[in-house]
Amino acid sequence: MAVLDNPLETLRLVNDSAAFNRWCGIVVEAAESGRVEISMPWRQELGQYSGFAHAGIIGGLIDTACGYAAATMLGANLLASHYAVNCLRPAVGERFCARARVIKPGRSQVFTACELYAIAGGKETLVATGETLLSVVLQEPKN
Amino acid sequence: MAVLDNPLETLRLVNDSAAFNRWCGIVVEAAESGRVEISMPWRQELGQYSGFAHAGIIGGLIDTACGYAAATMLGANLLASHYAVNCLRPAVGERFCARARVIKPGRSQVFTACELYAIAGGKETLVATGETLLSVVLQEPKN
Amino acid sequence: MAVLDNPLETLRLVNDSAAFNRWCGIVVEAAESGRVEISMPWRQELGQYSGFAHAGIIGGLIDTACGYAAATMLGANLLASHYAVNCLRPAVGERFCARARVIKPGRSQVFTACELYAIAGGKETLVATGETLLSVVLQEPKN
Amino acid sequence: MAVLDNPLETLRLVNDSAAFNRWCGIVVEAAESGRVEISMPWRQELGQYSGFAHAGIIGGLIDTACGYAAATMLGANLLASHYAVNCLRPAVGERFCARARVIKPGRSQVFTACELYAIAGGKETLVATGETLLSVVLQEPKN
Repeated sequence: MAVLDNPLETLRLVNDSAAFNRWCGIVVEAAESGRVEISMPWRQELGQYSGFAHAGIIGGLIDTACGYAAATMLGANLLASHYAVNCLRPAVGERFCARARVIKPGRSQVFTACELYAIAGGKETLVATGETLLSVVLQEPKN
Repeated sequence: MAVLDNPLETLRLVNDSAAFNRWCGIVVEAAESGRVEISMPWRQELGQYSGFAHAGIIGGLIDTACGYAAATMLGANLLASHYAVNCLRPAVGERFCARARVIKPGRSQVFTACELYAIAGGKETLVATGETLLSVVLQEPKN
Repeated sequence: MAVLDNPLETLRLVNDSAAFNRWCGIVVEAAESGRVEISMPWRQELGQYSGFAHAGIIGGLIDTACGYAAATMLGANLLASHYAVNCLRPAVGERFCARARVIKPGRSQVFTACELYAIAGGKETLVATGETLLSVVLQEPKN
Repeated sequence: MAVLDNPLETLRLVNDSAAFNRWCGIVVEAAESGRVEISMPWRQELGQYSGFAHAGIIGGLIDTACGYAAATMLGANLLASHYAVNCLRPAVGERFCARARVIKPGRSQVFTACELYAIAGGKETLVATGETLLSVVLQEPKN
């Protein structure tokens, strides 16, 4: 394992290097070993036909937060294998906040889970839950 | 059930009304009862930190195609309850194409499944599979 | 909604009426609004080829506990639409305990989640997590 | 990879070594590279409270068939990490048949999918779909 020494700083650099995350306006708010919080302000371009946040945005926030939570414990050599999203309520708010945690870190895979909240008028509403299973990328032996 | 009479035409209008779909450049390529194909050209803004298509984009394409496939059979009163994505290979290509089908339509919910292909140099590669479970929105009785 | 008045008593009756649950030796340990705990003693017939609890048993415990948790809030007219299981560690123990809770009850569907613990030598180990999405069965209008 | 030379014969031996599979009456019907079919006769002990096949049995059949399909291509060092089940219709029949296939074999993980049919009066009905993500168990280096 390659625990991140300065998880918040490192994840902010990783986040800034991802074009889609920049376009979304995703910010890494907090990061410690096994736990990460990210946020994103709402704007109309993120919506589906009813004006709620698009399922792709919901899944993108959940998968991003889960990946960052895994990275705090295992470093950057991780790829999402599977992710799943439960859409509990219409994703409507001024801002969204995804809080992810590692359920089980392993040598070859990491199980994570996440809650997504919509924030409006200072009030948080749970709008989605999700999970990501990440694989630790095997390094090719070098000769 | 409210089968769409002109599914291709109707879904193109729905697609044009979704801000995120327009930003992504999603196009409805084909639609018939229970089957839909959508496509999206690659551009760098859709990428994660390695430059592959972001998981949110992958999930967004799968969920969108699944929702449209369901709509061909049940009309527009549908909301995604759950969706899941298997990331089989790095999503790299000049263009992406998602093909979704209805597995089982029902009175209150619709099961759908989707394959996502990356296209490069005229060759298609399966990069992800996924599924969406949609709920038929209950209409309140009107008095 | 049809909240169960005596959830523990009612769920024990439901549990006794299920042939597979009796064969497994599943016991309803605790039940309150939105939360249920069930347990099952280990025996060799429940194993897969390595002698761990079979994935079907793991999923069966998770789905059963989730269904009971949903029933405490919405009564018995529920069917599982989708369930998913994360196998975190080999399911080995003297006894298993599944604790489920309702994440979001709704008019037409209920989201639930569950943790499965193996118990050995008085120590609990989290061996699996899972979730079930249940549908409220629509009653046909009677004439 | 360790492709099975005689997949049908080998999987029948594996199947016979699993106590729960014997109790269920699971039979390996067919096996070739990447594809497996298993069956199970119905009996009342496999039921939930309504008399349909229990969700644990449905998931057990799907996970078993998926694991066997993966084993035809990668041998026996596999563990299920995640599995998911869609319950499309009540699982009622004289016999059940699960047909699984490998979607993508990899060095460290294998994606599989499965359809579960209920058979009654000579007619097959699709009652569930599912998928399993398996991990290739890393061998410790031996000294």
